[in-house]
Amino acid sequence: MSYFENISKIQFEGAQSKNPFAFKHYNPEEVIGGKSMEEQLRFSIAYWHTFTADGSDPFGAGTMQRPWNSYSHMDLAKARVEASFELYEKLGAPYFAFHDRDIAPEGSNLKETNENLDVIVSMIQDYMKTSNVKLLWNTANMFTNPRFVHGAATSSNADVFAYAAAQVKKGLETAKLLGAENYVFWGGREGYDTLLNTDLKLELDNLARFLHLAVDYAKEIGYDGQFLIEPKPKEPTTHQYDTDAATTLSFLRQYGLDDHFKLNLEANHATLAGHTFEHELRTARINGMLGSVDANQGDPLLGWDTDEFPTDLYSTTLAMYEILQNGGLGKGGLNFDAKVRRASFEADDLFLSHIAGMDAFAIGLKTAHRLIEDRVFEEMISERYSSYTKGIGLDIVEGRANFHSLEKHALENSQIQNRSGRQENLKAVLNQYLLNQ
Amino acid sequence: MSYFENISKIQFEGAQSKNPFAFKHYNPEEVIGGKSMEEQLRFSIAYWHTFTADGSDPFGAGTMQRPWNSYSHMDLAKARVEASFELYEKLGAPYFAFHDRDIAPEGSNLKETNENLDVIVSMIQDYMKTSNVKLLWNTANMFTNPRFVHGAATSSNADVFAYAAAQVKKGLETAKLLGAENYVFWGGREGYDTLLNTDLKLELDNLARFLHLAVDYAKEIGYDGQFLIEPKPKEPTTHQYDTDAATTLSFLRQYGLDDHFKLNLEANHATLAGHTFEHELRTARINGMLGSVDANQGDPLLGWDTDEFPTDLYSTTLAMYEILQNGGLGKGGLNFDAKVRRASFEADDLFLSHIAGMDAFAIGLKTAHRLIEDRVFEEMISERYSSYTKGIGLDIVEGRANFHSLEKHALENSQIQNRSGRQENLKAVLNQYLLNQ
Amino acid sequence: MSYFENISKIQFEGAQSKNPFAFKHYNPEEVIGGKSMEEQLRFSIAYWHTFTADGSDPFGAGTMQRPWNSYSHMDLAKARVEASFELYEKLGAPYFAFHDRDIAPEGSNLKETNENLDVIVSMIQDYMKTSNVKLLWNTANMFTNPRFVHGAATSSNADVFAYAAAQVKKGLETAKLLGAENYVFWGGREGYDTLLNTDLKLELDNLARFLHLAVDYAKEIGYDGQFLIEPKPKEPTTHQYDTDAATTLSFLRQYGLDDHFKLNLEANHATLAGHTFEHELRTARINGMLGSVDANQGDPLLGWDTDEFPTDLYSTTLAMYEILQNGGLGKGGLNFDAKVRRASFEADDLFLSHIAGMDAFAIGLKTAHRLIEDRVFEEMISERYSSYTKGIGLDIVEGRANFHSLEKHALENSQIQNRSGRQENLKAVLNQYLLNQ
Amino acid sequence: MSYFENISKIQFEGAQSKNPFAFKHYNPEEVIGGKSMEEQLRFSIAYWHTFTADGSDPFGAGTMQRPWNSYSHMDLAKARVEASFELYEKLGAPYFAFHDRDIAPEGSNLKETNENLDVIVSMIQDYMKTSNVKLLWNTANMFTNPRFVHGAATSSNADVFAYAAAQVKKGLETAKLLGAENYVFWGGREGYDTLLNTDLKLELDNLARFLHLAVDYAKEIGYDGQFLIEPKPKEPTTHQYDTDAATTLSFLRQYGLDDHFKLNLEANHATLAGHTFEHELRTARINGMLGSVDANQGDPLLGWDTDEFPTDLYSTTLAMYEILQNGGLGKGGLNFDAKVRRASFEADDLFLSHIAGMDAFAIGLKTAHRLIEDRVFEEMISERYSSYTKGIGLDIVEGRANFHSLEKHALENSQIQNRSGRQENLKAVLNQYLLNQ
Repeated sequence: MSYFENISKIQFEGAQSKNPFAFKHYNPEEVIGGKSMEEQLRFSIAYWHTFTADGSDPFGAGTMQRPWNSYSHMDLAKARVEASFELYEKLGAPYFAFHDRDIAPEGSNLKETNENLDVIVSMIQDYMKTSNVKLLWNTANMFTNPRFVHGAATSSNADVFAYAAAQVKKGLETAKLLGAENYVFWGGREGYDTLLNTDLKLELDNLARFLHLAVDYAKEIGYDGQFLIEPKPKEPTTHQYDTDAATTLSFLRQYGLDDHFKLNLEANHATLAGHTFEHELRTARINGMLGSVDANQGDPLLGWDTDEFPTDLYSTTLAMYEILQNGGLGKGGLNFDAKVRRASFEADDLFLSHIAGMDAFAIGLKTAHRLIEDRVFEEMISERYSSYTKGIGLDIVEGRANFHSLEKHALENSQIQNRSGRQENLKAVLNQYLLNQ
Repeated sequence: MSYFENISKIQFEGAQSKNPFAFKHYNPEEVIGGKSMEEQLRFSIAYWHTFTADGSDPFGAGTMQRPWNSYSHMDLAKARVEASFELYEKLGAPYFAFHDRDIAPEGSNLKETNENLDVIVSMIQDYMKTSNVKLLWNTANMFTNPRFVHGAATSSNADVFAYAAAQVKKGLETAKLLGAENYVFWGGREGYDTLLNTDLKLELDNLARFLHLAVDYAKEIGYDGQFLIEPKPKEPTTHQYDTDAATTLSFLRQYGLDDHFKLNLEANHATLAGHTFEHELRTARINGMLGSVDANQGDPLLGWDTDEFPTDLYSTTLAMYEILQNGGLGKGGLNFDAKVRRASFEADDLFLSHIAGMDAFAIGLKTAHRLIEDRVFEEMISERYSSYTKGIGLDIVEGRANFHSLEKHALENSQIQNRSGRQENLKAVLNQYLLNQ
Repeated sequence: MSYFENISKIQFEGAQSKNPFAFKHYNPEEVIGGKSMEEQLRFSIAYWHTFTADGSDPFGAGTMQRPWNSYSHMDLAKARVEASFELYEKLGAPYFAFHDRDIAPEGSNLKETNENLDVIVSMIQDYMKTSNVKLLWNTANMFTNPRFVHGAATSSNADVFAYAAAQVKKGLETAKLLGAENYVFWGGREGYDTLLNTDLKLELDNLARFLHLAVDYAKEIGYDGQFLIEPKPKEPTTHQYDTDAATTLSFLRQYGLDDHFKLNLEANHATLAGHTFEHELRTARINGMLGSVDANQGDPLLGWDTDEFPTDLYSTTLAMYEILQNGGLGKGGLNFDAKVRRASFEADDLFLSHIAGMDAFAIGLKTAHRLIEDRVFEEMISERYSSYTKGIGLDIVEGRANFHSLEKHALENSQIQNRSGRQENLKAVLNQYLLNQ
Repeated sequence: MSYFENISKIQFEGAQSKNPFAFKHYNPEEVIGGKSMEEQLRFSIAYWHTFTADGSDPFGAGTMQRPWNSYSHMDLAKARVEASFELYEKLGAPYFAFHDRDIAPEGSNLKETNENLDVIVSMIQDYMKTSNVKLLWNTANMFTNPRFVHGAATSSNADVFAYAAAQVKKGLETAKLLGAENYVFWGGREGYDTLLNTDLKLELDNLARFLHLAVDYAKEIGYDGQFLIEPKPKEPTTHQYDTDAATTLSFLRQYGLDDHFKLNLEANHATLAGHTFEHELRTARINGMLGSVDANQGDPLLGWDTDEFPTDLYSTTLAMYEILQNGGLGKGGLNFDAKVRRASFEADDLFLSHIAGMDAFAIGLKTAHRLIEDRVFEEMISERYSSYTKGIGLDIVEGRANFHSLEKHALENSQIQNRSGRQENLKAVLNQYLLNQ
């Protein structure tokens, strides 16, 4: 049976193609920088946005026209699995990712919920046996159900902490079963709405306790996927604890968790935090903490998480620049944590949107690769900081300088010459590289 | 000689006074929470905004009508010192704070610049002998002069690093000489404008090297004031390294500087970072890093540092709440890093603005004190998190729980009862306390 | 039968009361400025937030614990009506407001939908006969149903325009039947997501055509309530056409609709547009277009419509200042377009939140009244602009000046003296008035 | 004499050129859409940013290394004129633009100021005789001098109104003398900082009076250039009156000025107002009010006017799309209201930055032209709104529908079919067109 009968496997047709259902730039087998594009980009489909979400927003009901809309409950869950593998294959996406509650509905109590989950996980396991598609990561949805109204690991209610622990325990078992390359912690409602009723220290301590228990349990069951934590600054809570890359690094270090986690960075979350996507990636990279990427984009003029498909070529290029400089994403990947607009409600839009995103990152990869090959920015930077490779600069970097020697140098070198930072020219060069595909 | 002849010493006249040149709430000798208001609030006057700034902005020239405008160069510097002590005395402000370049002009080279500084520091020292006014902190201006166009400790030019070191060396000597209770590092241009030309890791490493050298030198000369670092997220650079409290804590911990520094937190910088002022204070407080406060306010609808005098009573109350919970600010104080609006250009406005700010913090102090005395929020919080004081909650907090015991608890307690967070009512109670002066 | 058995009619107990279920400031019968507080404030309860909404948000399901949750479909609709009148009476709220779809569920087609509506409207009509509660306004929900995915009057689909017209036709008939004092147009999805697929001119022309048809139909049926249009800049669409007060005025004037409409201004929508609430009110007031108010507040650090209950006393005071200067709101009122936080899910929170909001506006009313009585800002303003009451200033205002006479004046008066704007002092005075309750 | 000796006339070298001092896309003589690129783009150099500004910002002194820095007062003014014409010629820029105070310093009174201006205007007039460079527009700087602290036409001081009038009178005479194709009004400080001291209605009335006097005087002296008004929402004042395109249109219509003015729209001002640049252009276009463009870009993560050189190709493409659909800019042009970054302080950066901007707009022109030629968005839009070309849709548009006929249609057509808006695919197509240069 087919859910997307009118769609054939998406092929690479090259930049001149006018076929909207073809890749113009993403050619999975093309080798860029010593690896195929498929290996470099490690695209993943987000189950929640693509198969579970219905297009509702705070002002409106669901709009999505989906071939599985006629089913309900466990039949619906099964239909979605079937449809999902059809879409993975047709797009040629090597990975997928899900929250527990995306794939199976909750039952009337935790036991029944777990049983529902078992049925669907088993079905997915079967599909994976005959498919090349792998699980990039799974995670636990600990924010939708009303029990998580005050958070999960940071809830003011210890029963909720316990419930969340049970859910992550199951999640880690699922990860091991399905061979998930990573396990993600996105702090759904781990944050606060008002300090007036919040014990900030206890909540943060509990969050750390929770993550340590997860690390312990993964070790216990022999799950060796990479643990990822995903920053976001606000929404749904007024202040989310894992605000941005720097804040999350601080938390991980403070609580001795930094050896066990890397970061899963999302473009739109960067925007909401007031940062560029490349800033967040660079911050993680220079700290050895760049784990995986939620590939989407926000609207800088809007104040909420729009989770748009990534089409801004500046953003995809500068993201791929950081990723290539990082030597790739390791076990991580580019997961399309992106949803079609509420007005793009036809099933075809699922393909058109992923094609838009995959092409945008393929262009980003190729452009970033050429920038690095030609050492465009590296040369500039090397020259710019060259004073630290000799004389007083080298003394500084190698720890030989002190305030006495530096003052002496300054008194003798009061008339300082700087060089232009050339920002405008660098942006023009970036445009040149982008257009020369 | 007097610079503010028409102004007498500002007195406390009580809430019903209509005299704009009187305190209605700030009564320095009134005891609140076991200390006088003067001791609790530790007000400080910012030299730069009050005596040096001229009211210019990116679209206009200076407007400030100041009694010392007729002087120039070193005579101007001296006149400002004279006027400053007159204002401290008339306002009854126990502290002041300055950057090196606020108090004395630069010379044609570093040596001459230091000589200018020596003259004025000596003059200030004399004034302090016959005055009760103390130096809350001093700092180095390493952002105005064009040499700092690419930063100071994070400049791409090692000569600039050396120059900045010489400047801080002198600053620490000044701090020791004048008995400054703190020494502040605000990262003027320590940040970047574009990643395209920036070696982020080298810049951050150099910033840490610089701060370590400062710690070493302070120890060498026996200066034992508190070191403070002041977060700000953007402006003048696109990305400032000491973005907010959490980011700065992360940096200090990563580079082993956290034992030597506390934070100097500014209300307007919090706003620019997308946080409330009380969030930044709480974050510092629960980490034992709350050092001092730059007391001002921003306009949440504007995207730049407006540095307004603090008059929002919600903000002053919630700030004082954190400060009282912290057991006070220790060596720190409430420094009015605030400037009169460009349109408030008369000398009288200097007094009216400080009175506005001092009264606003006095009200904040009194309101916060009563909130704490009555345990208004504390009771709510204690009740709200009570599940962590017994049963599974206590197991969690005391490290006895694991994913097995938690899952068992969850399976047996699937139907979770939460309690309302009562945010609206808490805000109404806050209003009650505010109005019941 | 009672839905809120544990709640008695809310009474005024004065500022010292510790009873959370009492008014501390709102005393409906107290006379302020020649009218009772009830008449001055004209509070209205928003049916959608209070009786229909369930606390769901983009990341979670409903949390609200409501006594009517056990009912469904038309029984649910009826239970809500019963509960609503109990709440109006217990709060002493003189008005309510609703969207058509708040009060009755849609049927399988428009005819059935209208029949459902008829049943509930008739029930409301009966309740109103034995109650003093009146309908401030009703409106049509033309954004929730998927058919409005591309807008209503500005939909790209003419069938949707027609459907929306039918809905507003019914809405006007309902307004006449229930004696609604106003009829509101909030442009739900009247906006665009991307210009790439949008005929901006046709959409705006159609919106104007739609409003003219509504004006015609109201005249035809003899409905003489005030028509109101409610600005909002973004959300749910990326760009909402009725962006802010000025934009909406421009639209109304351009299409000859300004004689038929006034503005319904919401505090949170002002914030989202980058304006203060008082700016929007002032803009409407000086244009004679201030119709009614959606009384809530936003969080200036968040980028979406949080619709919080109004508790910021600065905002309520400055809003009431504009309203009093306007001579009141006429047929309009203060409608609490505010929802309890998702975490304030207990039924008691409905009362606590409205009490918080009603007290906040009562304080605002009293403070604004005293400010006006004492001509605090008026004196300052009168003095500040006094140069326009004589000489060249009077010539300007009375149209006698031209560029020749002005140049002559300027050449003779090159050395201009300005006076301080005294912003900081004015804010201190506002604090004084606020605290002297 | 030459100010830029090391720079030759910038030539077009094509996309493959690695010469940073060459155009890669801007080829003035190449014909696109029936006109040369020079005629289509009508580039203009902003005198203030390029010749007058020194790179100072609120935290630092000037950094710009300029060949004319050694001169002062009138000699400096003359050197700048000489340098400016050298730069215009070398860049091949057909236009320039200035404020009165950019080109000549103020004297000790208005008479002397005007005499200074006369000297420089006369010098410019001479240069223009032997050059092809024309004046796109001039304007009056009524915001830098302290006399404008409370605004110019909206000052609370009638003397300032008169002074501003004298200044614009002179400006119009200058415009006539130099053949300026437009005269611009940017409302420097026409706005307010706080409503507490502001008579909003009087200020707006006076602004309108001022503009009417300017219209009258232009007619009197026979100056027939286009009058332009330039929206900006904030900065330097908290609220600028000419907030955005819609607000400015409203103001012009309300005061009967819309026949005499068009809009001068700036990209960065759009961003600050929460709009895209293309939104502002579209709004003006469909109202027949698109006059000219200030070509720059902002940083959407920063809250102030950064006035960066335009390099974002999405923005230049969508801007040129609106301009081409408008049939060009008429008397207007693309004025680079952009400044080199403070860190791009070398004289070479002036050329590199303009090349970056000119190439970016050339790419935008070519891409937009092909999009229009291929009717890419037009076809989509035409199909999307086709229901308004027949049946009930045509009735609506042609004014034959009313609420009765529409309700009848709706009752018979309850089950509405909509079509996807295809936003993601449209963005992918835009990328395709951008890359296929």
